[in-house]
This record gives sequence, structure tokens and C-alpha cells, in this order.
Amino acid sequence: MTGHVATGLSAFPLTPLSDDRVDESAYAAIIERLVRAGVDSIGALGSTGSYAYFDREERRRVAEATVRHAAGVPVIVGISALRTFHAQALAHDAQAAGASAVMLAPMSYQPLTDDDVMGLYTDVAGELSVPLVVYDNPGTTRFGFTPELYLRLAELPQVASIKIPPPPAEPTAAREHLARLRSAVPERVGLGVSGDPSAAAALLAGCDSWYSVLAGTVPGPALAIARAALSGRAEEALAESAGLAPLWELFSAHGSLRVVAAVAEILGLAAENCLPRPVLGLTGADRTVVETVVTALSLGK
Amino acid sequence: MTGHVATGLSAFPLTPLSDDRVDESAYAAIIERLVRAGVDSIGALGSTGSYAYFDREERRRVAEATVRHAAGVPVIVGISALRTFHAQALAHDAQAAGASAVMLAPMSYQPLTDDDVMGLYTDVAGELSVPLVVYDNPGTTRFGFTPELYLRLAELPQVASIKIPPPPAEPTAAREHLARLRSAVPERVGLGVSGDPSAAAALLAGCDSWYSVLAGTVPGPALAIARAALSGRAEEALAESAGLAPLWELFSAHGSLRVVAAVAEILGLAAENCLPRPVLGLTGADRTVVETVVTALSLGK
Repeated sequence: MTGHVATGLSAFPLTPLSDDRVDESAYAAIIERLVRAGVDSIGALGSTGSYAYFDREERRRVAEATVRHAAGVPVIVGISALRTFHAQALAHDAQAAGASAVMLAPMSYQPLTDDDVMGLYTDVAGELSVPLVVYDNPGTTRFGFTPELYLRLAELPQVASIKIPPPPAEPTAAREHLARLRSAVPERVGLGVSGDPSAAAALLAGCDSWYSVLAGTVPGPALAIARAALSGRAEEALAESAGLAPLWELFSAHGSLRVVAAVAEILGLAAENCLPRPVLGLTGADRTVVETVVTALSLGK
Repeated sequence: MTGHVATGLSAFPLTPLSDDRVDESAYAAIIERLVRAGVDSIGALGSTGSYAYFDREERRRVAEATVRHAAGVPVIVGISALRTFHAQALAHDAQAAGASAVMLAPMSYQPLTDDDVMGLYTDVAGELSVPLVVYDNPGTTRFGFTPELYLRLAELPQVASIKIPPPPAEPTAAREHLARLRSAVPERVGLGVSGDPSAAAALLAGCDSWYSVLAGTVPGPALAIARAALSGRAEEALAESAGLAPLWELFSAHGSLRVVAAVAEILGLAAENCLPRPVLGLTGADRTVVETVVTALSLGK
């Protein structure tokens, strides 16, 4: 496995907007907060960072700002795009900005075949001097990876980690799921979990890293889970995660992005309406429930 | 209904690439071919025109080229984008290029709510001086419209037509489906069918227009179907459509885009590998089957 970008807790911050444009000062403050909290790496311009909505220039500026404020904490930059040569250009920009690794999802408009996706990763990997994280997120890309495709991709020497969709949250089922994936890809390729509600079980079941939405906005509780799980303190990790159940229910109801955006607005980390239009924030009763959960779980501490 | 852009046969051409860049001379020849064939309008930069893969400058050039070569045939320009203000900018460019109408799909990365989509259309409609076609294409956007949302959107005075997904191909079922939609939206809003295999039945069942993939590459057979159906010659329209069954089967197997791209390459209308990477063209046995169908149906005539 290729070192620190593929292990531990990787925090995926929002890219907050103000008046529908990137709020660079709010973003800088969020990155500095993650560094102070002690996350292991920062994942800029993931789905939570709304990469899909920004143009090349906006993404270049966000990548540069992340590295500038990360104070040496490794930065993974999302380079996904619908078109191969745009992803290659974003890879170039991310490397020039000082990214420690890049992350690529098979973003799609026309449904993609396995050969399309293998071609995309091969073409982009050929441009890279830093490790590549394969980003498997069927909820936004609509592309379903098979274990066979994981294996083909793992043959690319740049591939350092695969960000997998949530395994079952139940510990035994998670262990069986991870064992199957682990046997499908070479040992040097890390497996990182996304889907925060499953993360405790997934880390205990053998994931090397947690690519976390929650940690990008509220790193404390995520670090408590990650440190316990990666030290083998299973009961503690699962209890910490279970304590966040009201938050996981909101993630399930509204998608994690809209929930952490509301949390960030409530905590004063982002201006109101911090998501890119047409994606609207939670309002009315939905917003009130988030406020209640933020208070009940002391997320502002 | 707002005149000619929402009636008859609208042909949606490929935007062919050569060496992964827009092939402007091949595109011009395709547009001129559609004009000679006598289509009622041209839909530039639809899904078949690969709009999602191009940047603003590429799209501006394609919109301008379409109007320049359309010789007065009305041009509908696709302005869909993930971000609202990008769609607004594309609307501005399309109008400046001389588009007779624009077409907007709720392209998504994060799954969108009805309120998100209503906000998108309201914000974009506010920028328009030409009619707007609502583009309902769940296969690529993953957004499912309800009849209730159609009705909300139809209240925007700019909305001239809704491009609906394929109704059932069976004539009675198609008639019932169209009657339900027709009763849901005001009479002034046209209903246009996409999904070429269902088009004959849909036009006979009361659709005002056919937004056609096939017509963008092979206009002759599509015009035969459309003219018969819109003149009420039901048997003739259905027989013409049934005669294309081998082509409809290929659309179902590979998606219409990859099939018409192969047809265009076989007919010499586009260079080899005319789709934007990572979307690969059909090769090997799949390509051979398309060649056989092109010959059997005399699509090159």
C-alpha cells in the first residue's frame, strides 16, 4: 500500500458557497479546523466538496487553497469529470497544486461499460506522478464496480486505494464482505470505506481507511470512532458510532451532503445556502430537526 | 403551443469527434444533410449530441455552427448543466447564436428533489427570450418527473413543450398514457416523444412532436414514420416502424447513442471513434451486427 493517503481517517470537507460562489475564507477556516483536530488526510473536492459543480479554474483554486491551509497534512484531490481529457487536465492541476494523491470516480452521463471505465482509469493513470484512489460511489455515478473490475484496476501501479461503498453495518456481515473484497485485490491496494454509518464496522472488519463526510465538518466524533476501531477497541468504536444514530438517520433521509451542509451552517462554518444551486439546503421542519440533533449530540463542542 | 419548435420531427444529430475533438466539418455536413431531408427542426447538443461532455466554448461553437448550417430550419439548443448558473450562461450563448428554442434537462450528480428542479427551471426560464423545452430523460439524468411536477413547470410561460420518455410501444397503452399526461398539462404545452421505437405509437396517440435520435443520423426512415403518423395513416406508420425492428433491438442492447455513432461511422458521416472518451464505440462482433443491419435496412440510401 502506498503510505499515508490510504490509511486512517480522511476528512472530506464541504466546499462552501456564499451567494453561489466559492467562499474561500470559510473554506480555509474549515481546512484549518481539520488540521487542528488531527485528521490523517484531507479529501478535497469529493462528492461532499461538490466537485461536480465547479469548473476547472474553481477546482484549481480549491486544490491550491487546501494544500496551502493543510499545513503538511496529506491532501487527496478529486479529479473526476465526465470526459477523460478533462480528468487528465484536473490531474495535472492537482499535482501542480501539491496534492499527495488524487481520487477519480467514473462520473457518468451516458451509462458506462466496464471497458469504458478501464479506459478512463488507464488514460488518467498514465498522467500521474502521485497515487490514485479509485472512487466507487454508485449513488452519484450510477456505475457499479464488480470485484473483477477492481482486480483489473488494481493492476495499474498508480492505484493505491479503493474507496468502497458502505458495507453492511452489522459487524459479522461487514467482516465477510471485506474478506471477499480483500481476497479480490492485491495486498498493496488499500480498501477505504465511505458511508459513515458503516465505518466503525468496516474499520473493525479490515478496512485501512475511512473516507468520511462527517469528519470533514465535525472531525471530533469521527476521530473517536476511527482511533478506537483502528486500535481494535471494537466495543468502544461501535458504541461511539451508535451514539450518532440520530445523525445517521438524517443522512439516510436527506443524503449526507444536505445534512452536513446544514450542520456547517448551524455551527457558523458556512454561510446560509452554502450548496451549489440547484441543490437546495434543508429548510423548515427538516432544518429544525438538524438543529435539534446538533444540540443533542453536542456537535458544536 | 409555441409554434414550430414543438411540432413535427425534430432531428437530434451526433456531435461527432475526430481525435477526441469536435469535428466541425463533419458536423456541418450532418446538419446540411438534415436540412436537405426536410426535418421540421434540429435539436443540437441533446444527449445524442453529447452536450454533457463539452465545455462552454465548445458548446457555443456547436450552437453557432448549427444555426449557420440550418438554412432557416428552427434549431433547439440543449443548455443542460449540473449547476444552475452554468445553464443560465449556456442559455445566453444559445440565444446569442440564434437558437429558436432551448432544451433543459435536470442533469444531476447529487440526486435532486422536486423543489431543486422547480428552482432550476424557474431560474433558467427567467433568462429566456425563446421557448423552453423541458427534457425528461431519466436514463441519463436519473430524475423522475411526476405529472404534478409537469403541471408546476407548465405554469412557467416559457415552457413550450415537454420531451417525455418513451410511452408504451403498444398503441392502446400509448393512447391511455398520453391521455393521462395530456390532461395533466395545459393545452398550450406540447408533448414530444423521445425513444424512437415508441415514436409511431406515441404520435398516433397524440404527441405533437418526435425528438428523434434516428432522424439526426438517418432522417429518411424517421420522416416516413412521422409523416404517416401525423397524417393519421396509422397502419403505414406502425409498419414503417416495425420494419426498423432490428435497429430498435440494437438501441435496446447498446443504447441509441453508441448505435447511431456506429451507423454514422459506417456511412462515412463521422470519423472512427466519434464519441467522447471515456465512451467507447461499438467494436468487434457488435460493430459487425450494426454493419449487417445498415445493409439490410438500406440505411445508406
